[in-house]
Amino acid sequence: MTAPPKGERDFIASALAPLATSVAARGLADDGAVWAPPLGRELVFTHDILACGVHYLGNDPPSDIAWKLLAVNLSDLAAMGARPAGVLMGLGLSAAEDDDWRAAFTAGLGRALAHFEVALWGGDTVTGLDRAVLGLTAIGDVLPGQALGRGGAQIGDDIWVSGSIGDAGLGLAMAQGRLPVDKALLNRFRRPTPRLALGRALAGVATACMDVSDGLLIDADRLARASGVRLAIDLDAVPVTAGPWTASIADRLARATAGDDYELLFTAATGSDVAALAVATKTPLTRIGRVVEGLGVQALAGGADVTPSRLGWEHR
Amino acid sequence: MTAPPKGERDFIASALAPLATSVAARGLADDGAVWAPPLGRELVFTHDILACGVHYLGNDPPSDIAWKLLAVNLSDLAAMGARPAGVLMGLGLSAAEDDDWRAAFTAGLGRALAHFEVALWGGDTVTGLDRAVLGLTAIGDVLPGQALGRGGAQIGDDIWVSGSIGDAGLGLAMAQGRLPVDKALLNRFRRPTPRLALGRALAGVATACMDVSDGLLIDADRLARASGVRLAIDLDAVPVTAGPWTASIADRLARATAGDDYELLFTAATGSDVAALAVATKTPLTRIGRVVEGLGVQALAGGADVTPSRLGWEHR
Repeated sequence: MTAPPKGERDFIASALAPLATSVAARGLADDGAVWAPPLGRELVFTHDILACGVHYLGNDPPSDIAWKLLAVNLSDLAAMGARPAGVLMGLGLSAAEDDDWRAAFTAGLGRALAHFEVALWGGDTVTGLDRAVLGLTAIGDVLPGQALGRGGAQIGDDIWVSGSIGDAGLGLAMAQGRLPVDKALLNRFRRPTPRLALGRALAGVATACMDVSDGLLIDADRLARASGVRLAIDLDAVPVTAGPWTASIADRLARATAGDDYELLFTAATGSDVAALAVATKTPLTRIGRVVEGLGVQALAGGADVTPSRLGWEHR
Repeated sequence: MTAPPKGERDFIASALAPLATSVAARGLADDGAVWAPPLGRELVFTHDILACGVHYLGNDPPSDIAWKLLAVNLSDLAAMGARPAGVLMGLGLSAAEDDDWRAAFTAGLGRALAHFEVALWGGDTVTGLDRAVLGLTAIGDVLPGQALGRGGAQIGDDIWVSGSIGDAGLGLAMAQGRLPVDKALLNRFRRPTPRLALGRALAGVATACMDVSDGLLIDADRLARASGVRLAIDLDAVPVTAGPWTASIADRLARATAGDDYELLFTAATGSDVAALAVATKTPLTRIGRVVEGLGVQALAGGADVTPSRLGWEHR
């Protein structure tokens, strides 16, 4: 009952196999991939799903969906300080993903794999679903004992974030037709850039790290709780780009509770040479607060506590 | 936009995290799992999807679905000769998978993980789908250069198969109400047993190997084409268990074209001590034919070519 229908096998052979050029993938012709892991490294594994209508919009360009499927998983590797090696992909497709969609998806996937220099090792394709569900497992490696996690923030540490916050939330509003389109901001939503160089540079330096996928405040709350501390974040310091949102507290909170930025949020001991890391990895880094006693996240503006009840993206 | 809704995070924390007891899983609290691979081994990766209504029936017991999701992936590791280490799971759930379903699924998953001594390392859960789509990535390890594949069958090799063929096809008919239920045969469909011990013993011995997931003949055809040879299979030798099907050629072909058996099909040089392997791994093994010149599969009965046009499970 689990046979790949002919259409699936044709798709795998004609569209996916040409992308699976690494020796490990064995041309997608065997029951699995075989890989010799690098000596003296630990491995990092992550698996994230993008579901049509939940994580992306049905009319998003297929090449952007492929990019995002890879990028959100590589962002998890970045958050752990890992270097990507290979991925396995689980494509569950519906009739809506027709031949044109599949061709655009695989073309975009090929470009994304090449861009991030990561190998397609294998996976599975199923058709006949009601809506597309796309899963991806990413495998990376890191020096032993240096994988980053959420649990190490220490009281007195500085809190840092890369890039700018809220751009993808604006991009989502543009994709939904709620705001006039600005291509750069739309791409922050559709084609996020995992902070891979930064993540690797932070391994062994940051005390705690995670990627900002659901919103700065909710993710900071998770990091804080995993570390048993409070993250006091100065909203006025949170880096933003220009856009339709203003510098009002309401708009700053809207940015800090919007998802999909895929920036890195990390803590580091005061005095760590984060400025040098920023230069070495060509990544804008901004200090946005301090780790203090307590539990959870606290958003401050002009010294006042403006922590909202809704911290980020949580449907239901 | 990719935030786990509260219900998903509760499910992960309350139901899945207790199963993720290995150090590598980090309590499912970080962005990924961290694992130190065993020295001097190559790694094998596989990812298979089970979609509700395609690969299992909506009214199948959830604990059996969990078992099967794990088993079909471990069967791919077995087919490569690998020893399982850990898995990542991508659960896409619909409203039909209610609290009772989820409780039964995770209970069954826990038992299956314990049975096969494999660790749950991580994954992702998404709710709000129209129908459930369950993905699993399995990671195993094998001695360098000894991973099995489909491409090594040599002319003159013997063809072997483990266990018995066609049982799961009968079990599927029972699950669908087309045949009166025989619990043992129904379980061959719902709770397949990956041939892990056999697979590991075959590494370095078999010239080619794969698991029989879509039907003996279609899978033999794939192995034959990957190896550039013909597999001449003697239908009279194919091992079957008792059941409603008879020994007629039609019924033998029905068994040999039914899917979901998850037995291992392999080739080995004539003179290989396969009998000793059978004893050492406590696995019934039957010689069912010989590798000859040509391409593809050939089914023989009483010396006559009875190869059917439909070789196995291929919808559309």
